[in-house]
Amino acid sequence: MTTDSELTIDAIEDAAQRIQPDVHRTGVLHSAAIDALAGRRVHLKAEHLQRSGSFKARGAHNKLRLILDAARRHGVVAVSSGNHATAVACAGQRLGIPVDVYMPRDAPALKQRATRGYGARIHFFDRLLDDRAQLIDAHVEAHGSIAVEPFDDVDIMAGQGTVAYELLTQSRVDTLVVPMSGGGLMAGCAVAACAAQSDITIIGVEPAVADDTARSFAKGDRVEIPQPITVADGLAVTAPGRLTFPINQRLVDRVVTVSDQQIIDTCVLLFERCKQVVEPSGATALAAVLAGLTGDADDVGVVMSGGNIDVTELAALVAAHPPPSDRR
Amino acid sequence: MTTDSELTIDAIEDAAQRIQPDVHRTGVLHSAAIDALAGRRVHLKAEHLQRSGSFKARGAHNKLRLILDAARRHGVVAVSSGNHATAVACAGQRLGIPVDVYMPRDAPALKQRATRGYGARIHFFDRLLDDRAQLIDAHVEAHGSIAVEPFDDVDIMAGQGTVAYELLTQSRVDTLVVPMSGGGLMAGCAVAACAAQSDITIIGVEPAVADDTARSFAKGDRVEIPQPITVADGLAVTAPGRLTFPINQRLVDRVVTVSDQQIIDTCVLLFERCKQVVEPSGATALAAVLAGLTGDADDVGVVMSGGNIDVTELAALVAAHPPPSDRR
Repeated sequence: MTTDSELTIDAIEDAAQRIQPDVHRTGVLHSAAIDALAGRRVHLKAEHLQRSGSFKARGAHNKLRLILDAARRHGVVAVSSGNHATAVACAGQRLGIPVDVYMPRDAPALKQRATRGYGARIHFFDRLLDDRAQLIDAHVEAHGSIAVEPFDDVDIMAGQGTVAYELLTQSRVDTLVVPMSGGGLMAGCAVAACAAQSDITIIGVEPAVADDTARSFAKGDRVEIPQPITVADGLAVTAPGRLTFPINQRLVDRVVTVSDQQIIDTCVLLFERCKQVVEPSGATALAAVLAGLTGDADDVGVVMSGGNIDVTELAALVAAHPPPSDRR
Repeated sequence: MTTDSELTIDAIEDAAQRIQPDVHRTGVLHSAAIDALAGRRVHLKAEHLQRSGSFKARGAHNKLRLILDAARRHGVVAVSSGNHATAVACAGQRLGIPVDVYMPRDAPALKQRATRGYGARIHFFDRLLDDRAQLIDAHVEAHGSIAVEPFDDVDIMAGQGTVAYELLTQSRVDTLVVPMSGGGLMAGCAVAACAAQSDITIIGVEPAVADDTARSFAKGDRVEIPQPITVADGLAVTAPGRLTFPINQRLVDRVVTVSDQQIIDTCVLLFERCKQVVEPSGATALAAVLAGLTGDADDVGVVMSGGNIDVTELAALVAAHPPPSDRR
């Protein structure tokens, strides 16, 4: 097990080995339509096709395999707006571990159904009123479960880093674009990418209304923002992670932001032109590429991080953010 | 060029060569969730990822390449509820051929947008009132264009047959399941499949409310039904083709039907579990497999024929056909 203080390429390589029986080696998708719109070759790492519907399965399996005996004995508990919960539930079912999950009452219905489908017990909380840390502490106190952090854990980061570790064996890219929430996916990907290719440019993307990391980069220190409300529900955190931030500060070239409208437009594009269901958080990195915010590299790697949204929810988001008529 | 009277495996092999620069060799998708529900291994030929969004690109390119000089001189005209129109428009744009298209006024908005996007001129007609043959005859008379049939043309059938021709090099299957409308896709696939593997079982699938081929099989002769209205708009024909029917009568083991509800449930399953956008017509064959109508073979090949639907239209169909709550 890696220590809390460092995230190394060795830890990511170990994670890749460890979770190989559990997760999919997802493909890299290409689209002539998207390349034309972006004016460059775009390599889309298809984590929406990952087990449990997002990259979160990688970190969850890595963590639970590392604490397997204790987890089977005591059970685990996670708090998450969706994909982390679904991934921990998925890994728990595969590995024979009891899972409790705390989800906000407004978490997407599909994420709730999927989490329940993997056999986890769901407890709801209020995204705006309840304190997530307190909920978890109380649960651990009452039941003796082990808490599984969504991002501020080196084993979780190492698992997520296998996304970029794989992508760079599948495609040659000059720039890597990754969505940022707590920063665990980015921290893992940045370490993996810099180890594989020291001259790579790494760009993080946030929703404009959930720009805690962009503000933190500008200030040079972690900034906390009020609970954001964005179509990219998976990216709605209030601050970068304590462990993830210094790693990202060191390795990420810059953080850019996109509007909710740009995110939904990108979901629609992926739906209509590529026939792929990608949730708003998962389309955020590509939205930045299409907005021209990621530089002029010829080959851009983009992490499409998840696809857990149902057709009714996606249609409602599109209705609230109608595409410009000239695009259709 | 093949003659009107026969569809041979040679013609399909020639078509595969001819259209190779124009169309995608689509992948075969697998899903543990679908295999579990079906109780067998399901090999999904992903024609929703085909150029123009459906298998129709294959026949259209084969036909237009065979009549290239005349088509460039005179232009072509097609009548279609959607995917044939879009495919002819796509091929026309690639090959430098002017295209006129007649579409029903209620054709899905995405198919209209895509057809216009490929530069075709669209003329609308009324699905219930207008006679398609008369529209085409009048257009040919007035403008000297060449009519491109949607299915009753051996060159079109040969192009569509490359779907099964490819699939059987990609997967080993005991049974092949194909959606049926005019029967062009099936006729081509049946000839290709029987040539590759004489013991293969071939099953056609229609919407229960558009069962012209099932009735025709039962009667042993082509039956005409009133214009059907089904969620599978691409399968809403009134009778099997004049040329396709005898081929299918000879080679297809049986024709089964599924309800509109089963079709929409399958679209939702593909959306939520596979993150794939498949239009109702394209999900019809899989619906029959999941309904247990396609026998007990271990390995079933299924043609997912197209993906041209937008999120608003799909959400409206799902709202009108809500999934059983126990499935979610």
